[in-house]
Amino acid sequence: MGRIDHSLYLAAVGDALDRYVPVTSLMQSELFRAMRYSLLAGGKRIRPVLVLEFCGLCGGDQEAALPFACAVEMIHTYSLIHDDLPCMDNDAMRRGKPSNHVVFGEAQALLAGDSLLTMAFETMLSSESIGGVGAQRAAEAAGVLAAAAGAYGMAGGQAIDLMSEGKKIPMETLQKMDECKTGALIRAAAKMGCILAGAESRLVRAADEYAAAVGFAFQIVDDILDVQGDEKSLGKPIGSDREKDKSTYVSLLGMERAGNAVRGLTDTACKALHAFPGDTAYLRGLAEELAVRDR
Amino acid sequence: MGRIDHSLYLAAVGDALDRYVPVTSLMQSELFRAMRYSLLAGGKRIRPVLVLEFCGLCGGDQEAALPFACAVEMIHTYSLIHDDLPCMDNDAMRRGKPSNHVVFGEAQALLAGDSLLTMAFETMLSSESIGGVGAQRAAEAAGVLAAAAGAYGMAGGQAIDLMSEGKKIPMETLQKMDECKTGALIRAAAKMGCILAGAESRLVRAADEYAAAVGFAFQIVDDILDVQGDEKSLGKPIGSDREKDKSTYVSLLGMERAGNAVRGLTDTACKALHAFPGDTAYLRGLAEELAVRDR
Repeated sequence: MGRIDHSLYLAAVGDALDRYVPVTSLMQSELFRAMRYSLLAGGKRIRPVLVLEFCGLCGGDQEAALPFACAVEMIHTYSLIHDDLPCMDNDAMRRGKPSNHVVFGEAQALLAGDSLLTMAFETMLSSESIGGVGAQRAAEAAGVLAAAAGAYGMAGGQAIDLMSEGKKIPMETLQKMDECKTGALIRAAAKMGCILAGAESRLVRAADEYAAAVGFAFQIVDDILDVQGDEKSLGKPIGSDREKDKSTYVSLLGMERAGNAVRGLTDTACKALHAFPGDTAYLRGLAEELAVRDR
Repeated sequence: MGRIDHSLYLAAVGDALDRYVPVTSLMQSELFRAMRYSLLAGGKRIRPVLVLEFCGLCGGDQEAALPFACAVEMIHTYSLIHDDLPCMDNDAMRRGKPSNHVVFGEAQALLAGDSLLTMAFETMLSSESIGGVGAQRAAEAAGVLAAAAGAYGMAGGQAIDLMSEGKKIPMETLQKMDECKTGALIRAAAKMGCILAGAESRLVRAADEYAAAVGFAFQIVDDILDVQGDEKSLGKPIGSDREKDKSTYVSLLGMERAGNAVRGLTDTACKALHAFPGDTAYLRGLAEELAVRDR
């Protein structure tokens, strides 16, 4: 497949996820239903798109990168299911639909999350996926994703969040937490795309810089939207951060400086793209779109 | 390291696990504490031992297989932590100690399980581990483990268990459930050892046969011990299956036929070892020991 536009990316990722986690008549069919419920519920698919676009930008085979792109989305989805559980954030709604555990029960939701996390590695490390990109790149890309998702990355960020609950936290802690919780996975996606294409390490680093800036901006925009977003387009109530007395970029920086930070980070992201010889319009557009999004 | 006896295996695995999940001063130090609490709590370490012994038997480098052996134990440990959670089996004790969530709280225990599952892949797919066995074997072994742990394997078995809760189930369902819940991971361990040594597929299949028989026997012995075991050596109360009116091999086959099945399976396991040219005394001993264990 050649370089494609956003809707084609969404369709390719959606189709592939549907294949990787099929409807089944196995005894554990309900588990698969629970996995599919959250995995195929839409979402922005930013992470798989980053894998595919950076892979294409570095001259790699996007078709062969598709299982890796889907793996990142599986891990993102598992994290949402587990975050919504009663013992974590206890959120009954997600993306305008009842949360996984509300529909399938806590036990099944726990297993659905566990299974999506595991399915990410099954998908990347199937003989077909290994054959598509070669064992070295497959192992390296899967290793980057594992490191980003685990105790030093996303799961570690959740643990920092737990420790900070109900406390005012300084900017440094908030930033560290978000780098782990959100940044690590977005950065992994961008780096994986380059690695799968066999790009030189200079480009892997540039992709990492781009994604780190986009990821940080993303989180600040989330905090801004929680103050001045529109509940209808967001699909969730606003003001919840303030209600919980949570430290956010808006509460720590004020609205004006938070907005400036988003613009600065978006510039940084776009500058990092100069390292790439190819057409980076899509990735510039993505960074800018995420900065002004309303949901 | 040459072929070593059981206590040396235990020491090697214990030391390596201690290194892979270190005490840390990171903000998420409590998460690492929770991971270590269950990971370093002892246990029989059957799965990592199978990886190492089959690797050695096939002429592979056991030192290079160590991260893979530890990865299987991490996944086993994650499954115990999540199984004990209130929404699953709600078990307050494990291996004679309070369960993870009793000590660290549900949220941290959930994250500790998630993180151990992820750490398994981080450990197998680090540049050092990939370098040690080569990318092809690393990716293949990690893929075998992922498939065994996921929705078609261990997690799928848990889901079958959920569906069967409080119901009498036929032999076929019980066996399918245990093949997934327990058998898949034990079989993966044995196969991984061969794969890491670059063994021919005939030997991988023989290792799989051995482990399938040992795993099945293991589960039947568990059911037997729940009826006639000693609470003190087991470290948990007996009679719980009967109390919950659970279908077990003992309830379905009767005690005598259950005992015969264990002996038959142990024979099958030992016969499968004939495929290997080297010294299989250790693996024969392991199969026999597990058949007559009292805990």
